[in-house]
Amino acid sequence: MQKRKLTLLVFLFAAVFANAQGRVSIKSPDQLMSLTVKNDIGGNITYEVAYKTKTVVAPSSLGFSFKEPALQVTSFDILSIDSTVVDKSWEPVWGETKLIRDNYKQLVLRLASHTKDRILLNIFFRAYNDGIAFRYEFPEQKGLMHFIIGDELTGFAMTGDHQSFWIPGDYDTNEYSYNHTSISRINAMVGDEAKEINVRSLFDSNAVQTPLMMKTAEGIYINIHEAALSNYPAMNLVLDKKKFNFNARLVPDAVGNKAYLQTPAKTPWRTILISDNAATLLASKMVLNCNEPSKISNTSFVKPQKFVGVWWEMHVGKSSWDYSGGQVGSQQQSKVPHGANTANVKRYIDFASSNGFDGVLVEGWNTGWEDWFGKWKEDVFDFLTPYPDYDLEALTAYAKQKNVRIIMHHETSGSVTNYERYMDRAYALMKSHNMNSVKSGYVGRIIPRGEHHDGQWMVKHYERVAKTTGENGIMVDMHEPVRPTGMHRTYPNWLACEAARGNEFNAWSVGNPPDHETILPFTRLIGGPMDYTPGIFRIKMSYYNPGKKEQIHTTLCKQLALYVTMYSPLQMAADLPENYEQKPDAFQFIKDVAVDWDDTKILAAEPGDYIYIARKEKGKANWFVGGITDENSREFVLKTDFLEKGTSYLAKVYRDAPDADWKTNPEAYVIEKFIVDNRTAMKLRLAPGGGFAVSLMPATKADISSTPKYRNK
Amino acid sequence: MQKRKLTLLVFLFAAVFANAQGRVSIKSPDQLMSLTVKNDIGGNITYEVAYKTKTVVAPSSLGFSFKEPALQVTSFDILSIDSTVVDKSWEPVWGETKLIRDNYKQLVLRLASHTKDRILLNIFFRAYNDGIAFRYEFPEQKGLMHFIIGDELTGFAMTGDHQSFWIPGDYDTNEYSYNHTSISRINAMVGDEAKEINVRSLFDSNAVQTPLMMKTAEGIYINIHEAALSNYPAMNLVLDKKKFNFNARLVPDAVGNKAYLQTPAKTPWRTILISDNAATLLASKMVLNCNEPSKISNTSFVKPQKFVGVWWEMHVGKSSWDYSGGQVGSQQQSKVPHGANTANVKRYIDFASSNGFDGVLVEGWNTGWEDWFGKWKEDVFDFLTPYPDYDLEALTAYAKQKNVRIIMHHETSGSVTNYERYMDRAYALMKSHNMNSVKSGYVGRIIPRGEHHDGQWMVKHYERVAKTTGENGIMVDMHEPVRPTGMHRTYPNWLACEAARGNEFNAWSVGNPPDHETILPFTRLIGGPMDYTPGIFRIKMSYYNPGKKEQIHTTLCKQLALYVTMYSPLQMAADLPENYEQKPDAFQFIKDVAVDWDDTKILAAEPGDYIYIARKEKGKANWFVGGITDENSREFVLKTDFLEKGTSYLAKVYRDAPDADWKTNPEAYVIEKFIVDNRTAMKLRLAPGGGFAVSLMPATKADISSTPKYRNK
Repeated sequence: MQKRKLTLLVFLFAAVFANAQGRVSIKSPDQLMSLTVKNDIGGNITYEVAYKTKTVVAPSSLGFSFKEPALQVTSFDILSIDSTVVDKSWEPVWGETKLIRDNYKQLVLRLASHTKDRILLNIFFRAYNDGIAFRYEFPEQKGLMHFIIGDELTGFAMTGDHQSFWIPGDYDTNEYSYNHTSISRINAMVGDEAKEINVRSLFDSNAVQTPLMMKTAEGIYINIHEAALSNYPAMNLVLDKKKFNFNARLVPDAVGNKAYLQTPAKTPWRTILISDNAATLLASKMVLNCNEPSKISNTSFVKPQKFVGVWWEMHVGKSSWDYSGGQVGSQQQSKVPHGANTANVKRYIDFASSNGFDGVLVEGWNTGWEDWFGKWKEDVFDFLTPYPDYDLEALTAYAKQKNVRIIMHHETSGSVTNYERYMDRAYALMKSHNMNSVKSGYVGRIIPRGEHHDGQWMVKHYERVAKTTGENGIMVDMHEPVRPTGMHRTYPNWLACEAARGNEFNAWSVGNPPDHETILPFTRLIGGPMDYTPGIFRIKMSYYNPGKKEQIHTTLCKQLALYVTMYSPLQMAADLPENYEQKPDAFQFIKDVAVDWDDTKILAAEPGDYIYIARKEKGKANWFVGGITDENSREFVLKTDFLEKGTSYLAKVYRDAPDADWKTNPEAYVIEKFIVDNRTAMKLRLAPGGGFAVSLMPATKADISSTPKYRNK
Repeated sequence: MQKRKLTLLVFLFAAVFANAQGRVSIKSPDQLMSLTVKNDIGGNITYEVAYKTKTVVAPSSLGFSFKEPALQVTSFDILSIDSTVVDKSWEPVWGETKLIRDNYKQLVLRLASHTKDRILLNIFFRAYNDGIAFRYEFPEQKGLMHFIIGDELTGFAMTGDHQSFWIPGDYDTNEYSYNHTSISRINAMVGDEAKEINVRSLFDSNAVQTPLMMKTAEGIYINIHEAALSNYPAMNLVLDKKKFNFNARLVPDAVGNKAYLQTPAKTPWRTILISDNAATLLASKMVLNCNEPSKISNTSFVKPQKFVGVWWEMHVGKSSWDYSGGQVGSQQQSKVPHGANTANVKRYIDFASSNGFDGVLVEGWNTGWEDWFGKWKEDVFDFLTPYPDYDLEALTAYAKQKNVRIIMHHETSGSVTNYERYMDRAYALMKSHNMNSVKSGYVGRIIPRGEHHDGQWMVKHYERVAKTTGENGIMVDMHEPVRPTGMHRTYPNWLACEAARGNEFNAWSVGNPPDHETILPFTRLIGGPMDYTPGIFRIKMSYYNPGKKEQIHTTLCKQLALYVTMYSPLQMAADLPENYEQKPDAFQFIKDVAVDWDDTKILAAEPGDYIYIARKEKGKANWFVGGITDENSREFVLKTDFLEKGTSYLAKVYRDAPDADWKTNPEAYVIEKFIVDNRTAMKLRLAPGGGFAVSLMPATKADISSTPKYRNK
């Protein structure tokens, strides 16, 4: 770690700002990114960002409006300016790479507001090679202890009518499909049509969520998000269309306040990733770098993993979450058997065990599903009581004997006060039954009533769950939480979140358009891993019910590719065991693919179009490559120059059949084997809505003698 | 238990109502109270009440407005009418009498609303000898499962401009002084002046709380309240001044809804006590009778008790709740020692043990008091961590050795989400440290933010605490909860509540006027016992700090009398041990007085003026008498005709000295002993703001020989 004071610079700044007016700039270590802060004659502070001499963020506002005490904190005297360079590296507990470099120049402005009682406020700016980050800090001070944020007045002024990938600003859900429009054509009220999402809280037709992905006419990629969202509400962005200016809009609480803070207090980092190369942006670790190191002292229990589960069969209507079949309030319409019965779960355990999976998720194991949904009901689940046909003791013993762990399921139905009452007992039950992973869910309007999924109260709840599970040796995977902001660095047991439109929507709604998975890594995944639940082999729901028109909007091979392109340390093989058993050759890729990595190469990427990624398995010589496309067919030349020089690898290629198509022929695939090395350039065709997956393992002598060598064409 | 169907009557009613218009009446067992229900041509149902031929409640509305589904449920078809007579008796776990008779006539109307989707609604009416009660019930029905109450449309139409004892309608506090005005002069905004109450939520200048005590020009006493408040918000009453009509106004939740119900659902009972004798009204057990029997299966741990505590010394400014002395946010201004230190608590334990007290309350034992107050802060206390100068282990052992129990203190600071997270662990800590009583507190704005102390969410919380403590063998005493409604019948471990303006206000505010304690039994105590914390011997706060003008607004003898007149199974000797030690003769009454009773005689009472009560100790022959007056001096002739005939009793009389006066000479008292019997008529003078206390124990021979016989004058 390198850290030195730029004393000379500091004095210079202090001089410039002595007139209460002036400017100060810092540049990224590679000198390509520059951030300038200006202080005008009225005391207003603005920032602007340039990349390779082009302005990317025009002068943008900074500051706050307080509710208690009632103050506008928008103009300041500058007390001091400080600057440092940081260059260090750290090893994540799990991740896309073994080592992460954290290298930036930091500028700290210490300010005092022009209000009668002067408020001390520090702003930390960082210039990274791959973007800009800044956060506000209210230091401990005599005149300000407890305060309530009315509004954060941060702006992000764009320089033109960029192309953008956006979902509507919403206080409760991030399960929308992405829109791809110019900024000027943003209209959040399209979210009103998304009836498949139960709880929507749209609030402004010009509002969008972060991560907001944009591309300028000059080909610069810009991504606005936040990092280290802790004890603060999530930020939406409200567009001023005349100026292409996005303004922060924090999620309010039940009484309209934004955040209750006590000095010393820090906001999340506001992050702007910038690059003229989409692959570089995708590889950015800036959001992670802005988060705190692990607060979980012992992380030895944290293990990336693959799992199967009693889950997809409910989504396709084969079985039900509830026991009675009454189905009141659940999504099922007709009476079907209860999925989480002992015999069925044993079948999943057998399947997991014989195919090398770590866990078996069981949803619907506990009482309450007869009346859990959509009624803002507080006392729903107790997270303790199994249904009578679910033999918790026997299944625990059986799973242990089969070297598999059952993954606990805690659906809160949005009744978080209720969940918090039971958390201690629920985690104790898990521990006494050999479970160390929990999937939680937040479907429904939040209780405390009036609170939102993305407000400060819930943000604190998610972190409380991450912390409490972590201290109890439990890994957690949250569905329907606030969008991630890299907090998994701080809580490495917080393996993944859904927090976006997952594969499940394909089972019972208009589904996810074929470009969905090419956008997610540029948007939602900027904040952290997603439990997307890939691996669906039965693409069309008509298989289960001839009347159904729903389907997965990909080919089967694209489902395989997602294990590589949709990064997560927690990956589900989401389809039914019987569907995998019918295609053991294709299933082999899911069995083989790793979930933790030494290295990641973004080979090529364009949001909304395609993503090609190669990753090296953690601690092993194996590589896995995934490629996906949108609704268009594509060809890709996979240059395996990342492989170890002079080593032969056995490549298993899983690709769309020549006549495959996500709509008309999604399940057609071809599997081929080749011997390859680091000079190979393999031509691969992706069907419309298709993809490919390749595993590359050091070849044995037997492999080499029995397998053709790939010849570059 | 006697219970028979009045089949004939039922048919008669059914006939009357066949035209969808008509009236039906029931009378109380003594025939003096009559209730008439009318159904008008539009389907509206009203009720009216007469007492001894005088109309007491004019025709008043019934019904609901629903928020979800959006419906007005105000006109009905009558499906059936049923009537029963009940006459049974039950033994409370503790109480003012050993046996309680429950005798009423009940009328049940089964209704179907005129809405498109017909809502089934039953109304239960009961005519008791001492009042009327009714409740709504939504039975299980196909067309209505979950619903949200927008408003309850119950009215209480008075027949004239009665005298009334009222406090302002408020969603968060009941700690106001009582106003005594005619109905037409009600003005709730006087509550705005009550700056000594931290959290006030006044909402309508015509709103008052229940229990609302009234007296008609003809001398009929009327008290409106509710019974069995469970899973429902508390009811305020908003006056229509033109009609002297009080309309129910339920406390809203954070989003303005009133109650979330699921069929089958019941509202609390709406209760109207009526009598032309104030003492009869005071003796009423109707509210208790309307509550459910105990839901705590094993109540053997429940014991009425007297206690002392590290508490008053903080109120008078001698010591502090917090350890650091920083005092941020607490009520203390200057630095004083931490009260809950090991040596000081030992002193209280010694004092309790040598004077026969059961418990020692210790407030300020746990970390968090430096910054607990008034900031709507969520993470304040953990209810687990003692201050470093409080040796929990040593004090537990010491108390046990001294045959005393420490009473746990759980101040939530209104942050109830936080308390609920810790409840399990907090009660486990108590049990592992030999504690079986907890005093809880709810000072401050409620979290979940937007919820109110008296809304449905909090009502559920209080009941959850009562239930959970009960199941854990713990007794509970709640401060700042919703006003009680007799739920201590259902949870006998819920010994007492504050829920009104307690004695503590005298220490640091304008205090409680001298008539306060003569009103409370007619208002707040109609719902249940109050932890008023009587027994203050050092009346004037100038004793502690010459600059202070605050004082208790009673004489010392009135403080003694309160142990009898202010019923509670949990009574504190609230003053400091050193103050009691200086007046051991007067303290003797507090040591002697019982806290559980075989029988109670309301000898005479008039709200706002005086109360005289005699009670017989549970399982013993001892009687205790208390008499209190308002600001006026009075004379009372205590006829001890309740004593066992032919038995001589040693009477110890604690009375105001002739020159005593609450304002000028409050601590002057006289103690006398006499031998009395059931023919004694003892003349007693009460000073302005004064009172008397008398203990009556069967006389020993030594007593008789050494003590003068009281001679009636």
